[in-house]
Amino acid sequence: MRLVLAGFGVVGQSFARLLMAQERELATSYGLVPQVVGIMDSSGWLVDEHGIDLKRALKAKKETGKVTGKAHKDAAAKKPADVIRDMEAEVLIEATPTNFKTGEPGFSHMKAAFESRKHVVTCNKGPLSIAYYALHELARHNGVQLRFSGAVGGGTPVLDFGKTCSMGDRLTGIRGILNGTCNYILTRMEQQGVSFDEALDGAKKAGYAEADPSLDIDGYDSAVKLVITANHLLLSKAGIKDVKVSGIRGISREEVLRTRKEGKAIRLIASVSKERGLVVEPTVIEREHPLCITGANNAVEFECEYSGPKVIIGKGAGGPETASSLLRDLLEIRGKINGPTAAVPVYRASGVAGGWS
Amino acid sequence: MRLVLAGFGVVGQSFARLLMAQERELATSYGLVPQVVGIMDSSGWLVDEHGIDLKRALKAKKETGKVTGKAHKDAAAKKPADVIRDMEAEVLIEATPTNFKTGEPGFSHMKAAFESRKHVVTCNKGPLSIAYYALHELARHNGVQLRFSGAVGGGTPVLDFGKTCSMGDRLTGIRGILNGTCNYILTRMEQQGVSFDEALDGAKKAGYAEADPSLDIDGYDSAVKLVITANHLLLSKAGIKDVKVSGIRGISREEVLRTRKEGKAIRLIASVSKERGLVVEPTVIEREHPLCITGANNAVEFECEYSGPKVIIGKGAGGPETASSLLRDLLEIRGKINGPTAAVPVYRASGVAGGWS
Repeated sequence: MRLVLAGFGVVGQSFARLLMAQERELATSYGLVPQVVGIMDSSGWLVDEHGIDLKRALKAKKETGKVTGKAHKDAAAKKPADVIRDMEAEVLIEATPTNFKTGEPGFSHMKAAFESRKHVVTCNKGPLSIAYYALHELARHNGVQLRFSGAVGGGTPVLDFGKTCSMGDRLTGIRGILNGTCNYILTRMEQQGVSFDEALDGAKKAGYAEADPSLDIDGYDSAVKLVITANHLLLSKAGIKDVKVSGIRGISREEVLRTRKEGKAIRLIASVSKERGLVVEPTVIEREHPLCITGANNAVEFECEYSGPKVIIGKGAGGPETASSLLRDLLEIRGKINGPTAAVPVYRASGVAGGWS
Repeated sequence: MRLVLAGFGVVGQSFARLLMAQERELATSYGLVPQVVGIMDSSGWLVDEHGIDLKRALKAKKETGKVTGKAHKDAAAKKPADVIRDMEAEVLIEATPTNFKTGEPGFSHMKAAFESRKHVVTCNKGPLSIAYYALHELARHNGVQLRFSGAVGGGTPVLDFGKTCSMGDRLTGIRGILNGTCNYILTRMEQQGVSFDEALDGAKKAGYAEADPSLDIDGYDSAVKLVITANHLLLSKAGIKDVKVSGIRGISREEVLRTRKEGKAIRLIASVSKERGLVVEPTVIEREHPLCITGANNAVEFECEYSGPKVIIGKGAGGPETASSLLRDLLEIRGKINGPTAAVPVYRASGVAGGWS
């Protein structure tokens, strides 16, 4: 299966590493032998129709910050979308930076892929939040698939889980914590008794928050993920303007500690329901509620008519995590899952309480 | 699609009700028009090749405790397995009572179904824990499917979720709370400061524990679910004898309250790892760990090599819940999921903190 990889940042590089690490298992368990025939980053294209040596590409990227090597013969003169269109490949992996306003360049990349009958696997929230249904129409019209597990929940299969829950049952509402950075900040405020600004500094130092953290802390990132989730699972036909958003910037240390004393906690909850529509806002919840998680995690609750509420919890971001979602999507497209299980019996111990904060 | 329903207790009746409630949605969203052509309970068979009137069957069962009506012409003289074998249908729904020692009568029912090329959907833990691989071999040999979402986690798709997590990643360990009754008892002990016996009485009154609760509180039910989970997701080739089991009978009020004071909690954890194999035992965990749920719920943590730990939480038993798993399995077999989502956009509000204890 020939892949074109647009975007070679943290996620793109993690995906390349994952393909190498899982090479044998992909072949034996799924019959999948992926060949990356093109990699694009902001410096241009690396192209090899016989399959790029990923180890060398990663090394070059690390040393020079660029994907260098044999350039596509027309690449210099062409737009990236045209390179994608002309390239012989089955799947585009779209992992360029998210642009919440225009969706570009991801949108043009996906459009070019569909028009040239390539499946698309992406974690790029921009195009999905702006043109969810248009992209699906384009994919369907061209007889190819669009998959985007990694767009919500990073490596945690929030959307797939919601789909599973809705089969034979009826999803009546969804609510959850969709931004790990905000949750990390709120957890620090309540556990260490620090102010919002101090907690935000901590999040920056720990690598959870950007230099400009406003997309996270003002609730915008959560809102975009909520739009994708609601459209995917509840056919909401929503855009970002339909979400009532408030972030966590105004929350005081005193408020957090007082809430903690009452056996409760403040969390930034994104929710969709018939009564209230799409909302992102700081919400007081019981500490014993399954949604009340700590640290830079995500948690989503699905309300099901027949089988009751269900919660899924996991890491919501990160290179290897998101790359695992891209690979899962690729395998879904491949659709050749053999036997009663796809897991290989390799065990590893880890403490029950490990890895969660 | 013609169905034979073996077992018409709480789950079987809930399944019949769910088929009626979802009739329109099954037809429009999935193209599934199920026809129940046979229902068996301990009193015998109700058979109608043109489709049983489920409303009447439920009414008869409620009023007389029996599935009565037109009997299969040879049913009286035949073994139930032979009736299943001879009946013209595509799927057997096996929901007879679980027998942990012999797996019967479920095992014979499933065998007869496979031999007559019927798919099997079941929530019956007995046959699965005793003959997991043999049943799969039989199904495969006869070109039909075996599905059993409801056997672990009731309506919470624990096994499906584990499968999703393992795609493109590697499951390295599984641990969780697989028995809601034990969790209810432990929660009552810590929240109300009562003794084990008082909490057990409460669980009986609330309908969570049987008159003879030993299968639950001695850890046996958890062990059986662990065997099925480990075999399904990690190819463990395990039987119930491979599980080191200890239950919650010996846990004192003092121990529970002391642990609570330390910011921790005791939970009956079932786990599988390379180092320790399959174990069911009371375990002290941090109160902030996602597995530390309250009430009669289940929670399972999947440790994934690339994407980290993930937890799923939901109700672990109950008629409508387990019936929803049976229906989900049936839809998976049907395999005609249309469009980008299977959910119908019907919303219903419910409080964030609702429904969890």
